[in-house]
Amino acid sequence: MTHTKPDTELENYVSALGCEALKASRRLAVCTPEQKNAALLEMSYELARCQDEIVHVNQEEVEAARRRGLPAAMCDRLLLTEGRFRAMLNGLRDVAALPDPVGAELNTTVRPNGLVIKKVRVPLGVIAIIYESRPNVTADAASLCLKSSNAVILRGGSEALRTNTAIAQALTAGLVKSGLPAGAVQLVNTADREAVRALVQLDKYVNLVIPRGGEGLIRTVVELARVPVLKHYKGVCHVYVDESADLEMALRICENAKCQRPGVCNAMETLLVHEGAAARFLPGLGGLLGEKGVELRGDEAVRALIPWALPAEEQDWYAEYLDLILAVRIVPNVWAAIDHINTYGSQHTDAVVAEDEAVQRAFVEQVDSGVVCINASTRFNDGGEFGMGAEMGISTDKVHARGPVALEELTSYKYIVLGSGQVRN
Amino acid sequence: MTHTKPDTELENYVSALGCEALKASRRLAVCTPEQKNAALLEMSYELARCQDEIVHVNQEEVEAARRRGLPAAMCDRLLLTEGRFRAMLNGLRDVAALPDPVGAELNTTVRPNGLVIKKVRVPLGVIAIIYESRPNVTADAASLCLKSSNAVILRGGSEALRTNTAIAQALTAGLVKSGLPAGAVQLVNTADREAVRALVQLDKYVNLVIPRGGEGLIRTVVELARVPVLKHYKGVCHVYVDESADLEMALRICENAKCQRPGVCNAMETLLVHEGAAARFLPGLGGLLGEKGVELRGDEAVRALIPWALPAEEQDWYAEYLDLILAVRIVPNVWAAIDHINTYGSQHTDAVVAEDEAVQRAFVEQVDSGVVCINASTRFNDGGEFGMGAEMGISTDKVHARGPVALEELTSYKYIVLGSGQVRN
Repeated sequence: MTHTKPDTELENYVSALGCEALKASRRLAVCTPEQKNAALLEMSYELARCQDEIVHVNQEEVEAARRRGLPAAMCDRLLLTEGRFRAMLNGLRDVAALPDPVGAELNTTVRPNGLVIKKVRVPLGVIAIIYESRPNVTADAASLCLKSSNAVILRGGSEALRTNTAIAQALTAGLVKSGLPAGAVQLVNTADREAVRALVQLDKYVNLVIPRGGEGLIRTVVELARVPVLKHYKGVCHVYVDESADLEMALRICENAKCQRPGVCNAMETLLVHEGAAARFLPGLGGLLGEKGVELRGDEAVRALIPWALPAEEQDWYAEYLDLILAVRIVPNVWAAIDHINTYGSQHTDAVVAEDEAVQRAFVEQVDSGVVCINASTRFNDGGEFGMGAEMGISTDKVHARGPVALEELTSYKYIVLGSGQVRN
Repeated sequence: MTHTKPDTELENYVSALGCEALKASRRLAVCTPEQKNAALLEMSYELARCQDEIVHVNQEEVEAARRRGLPAAMCDRLLLTEGRFRAMLNGLRDVAALPDPVGAELNTTVRPNGLVIKKVRVPLGVIAIIYESRPNVTADAASLCLKSSNAVILRGGSEALRTNTAIAQALTAGLVKSGLPAGAVQLVNTADREAVRALVQLDKYVNLVIPRGGEGLIRTVVELARVPVLKHYKGVCHVYVDESADLEMALRICENAKCQRPGVCNAMETLLVHEGAAARFLPGLGGLLGEKGVELRGDEAVRALIPWALPAEEQDWYAEYLDLILAVRIVPNVWAAIDHINTYGSQHTDAVVAEDEAVQRAFVEQVDSGVVCINASTRFNDGGEFGMGAEMGISTDKVHARGPVALEELTSYKYIVLGSGQVRN
């Protein structure tokens, strides 16, 4: 196998970050909840102290991005408004207030030979976060990693490098003031794309990589990585409205799942309707969503009931629109809905609206997704809504963590075997 | 990045295995414990029925391996003795008798808005096992995957291809007789090494790869994989004997950890002794291990106490001997022992022998290994000894599962959100 050989200086730089992070992670593993919480508050004060400077640098970067012709949506994500800055500060304080995930005894077994085996929650060690555009991720991700006693190596988008650097400097200053090692929060301080490769192959030091961004970024990370990756590619979320559904409820759920925030991964992208409910349900739904400016793309049977719907093509069933567009299909029964979801879906979040408990059960058991909702909006797949506090993101993987990734999902465990001289026969 | 392009026919073959496995995994996910247990028993009967044929094929393969000059140890691992065949049959029956890991409710939360959120244990889906030599792995791995409702794709060593094929055919016959899909247990039926690459990059169908074998095999899998990998590279296990240790107990533990089965990953490879205990402990230990035929490799201070010990070199501290060889070092205190273990160790299993509770606590908290033993032999890091039943192997990863990988470690979870029409604000 031939690889482009990464620049050795760059490799050494990234490796040195890893080595520092590992050292810091060993310190973090034994520090108290109080030390971590004090550091999080200190970080918020330092960030507040540097606000003018950070906002100034950020405005220069947004200007530069506009001049280079970056899409408006991307420039907007890059911008640190007053509100977003405040949310960063509050985020640090909120994470400090969450319960500490480290040290909990998960399980204890006493063996016939007297050995006591305890399973105890411990940090993962070093986490690398690779993200795009939004500079607030720098503080959000750092706070969750610190709270779970993990050292973090942050790699943001090149268009936000100066903003991210300024934020990371403030965070580090807060860390150091409170007596924790600067290596606990580090930013990859280069726009060189090869740094991503070096980082995700650093299995000597890094325990987990979490990519956050578009599908292209995530595919690149998975392809290059030698370190475990936690991720979701996309959220093609479905609502299935059964023949037995309360159609008033189905209307409310569909409206919420599609319109409340269409640009996020847990918004509905495809609606499946039982053929026995279609004539009663779809005209009303079409009216409601039409008023909200939603474009519908349906199969033939849908278009017979909603004449203004556009025809859906095969690719629409795979689409994550992240926009006011909805694909609609009529299906003969719940089994066909399950098949459709397992074929075209992304194992993210899928909902059934049904009163029939056999239908609910079949859907929940057979839809192979991280979160399956019964008579509730797909929008609830969210760490905050699950009562976990802030989240790092959503996983559609089955290994390690599935669904919302919050503090507990950023930990591992170790076994402690407590004996009195036992040996094995 | 340039990859050698794998043969398309081979890729199609492996991809078709994956597709069948996925289909089978959907069936397994909803079948009852009774169906799975009946299938495991049926598989054992079919295997017993084919014993003569399998043993015959195996003898031909062992002969061929000898003629090709394969090392004697490898030929021995390849051989299916009467006892090993019996162990395979018993293994299937024993796994049937274990508790079913699927379907357990791990957690239930009721949210202020009335949503009930259940976290439920589900299968991973499709697991690929890549292994070397020992044909009994074919049946052992298949039984654990089936019991946890996962479909498995097995890829054994080329030297055992015919034996593995014969075993897999018997297992499949048992599956089909009991009404479960043949795709639940499949063997990659080619000696082509490119099949490994195709398999570990099949992220469309495969949820987890578990390589079992030498460090070279595992490194290759990690380098090529796009699918999550669960593994350990090696077991460089330590025992640290503190100044406060009960030295009688320390002798027993060291003898057991080194000599009871030296060729396995949880055997001790390095002994660390507190300088305050060395003069009291090492001469006696040297006598005991010397009698057992153990070669000692020590630092200067060790050789002053055990004159016949060979000098240890830097590389000895990294070595996994898997043999009657032991590296020995004298350290000034527990902190130096922890440092040594975190520097040279493999995060597998490490033990402290000490009566001082502060020393025990420091060791347990700071040694960054999956299993840490207090006053017990390292040999206890084993699924059976932990009360988990049979195990697939040991993980030194921190992501997903750490320590023994048994049935629960072969599962994932899903969230079921049960509502009554809730939408998000």
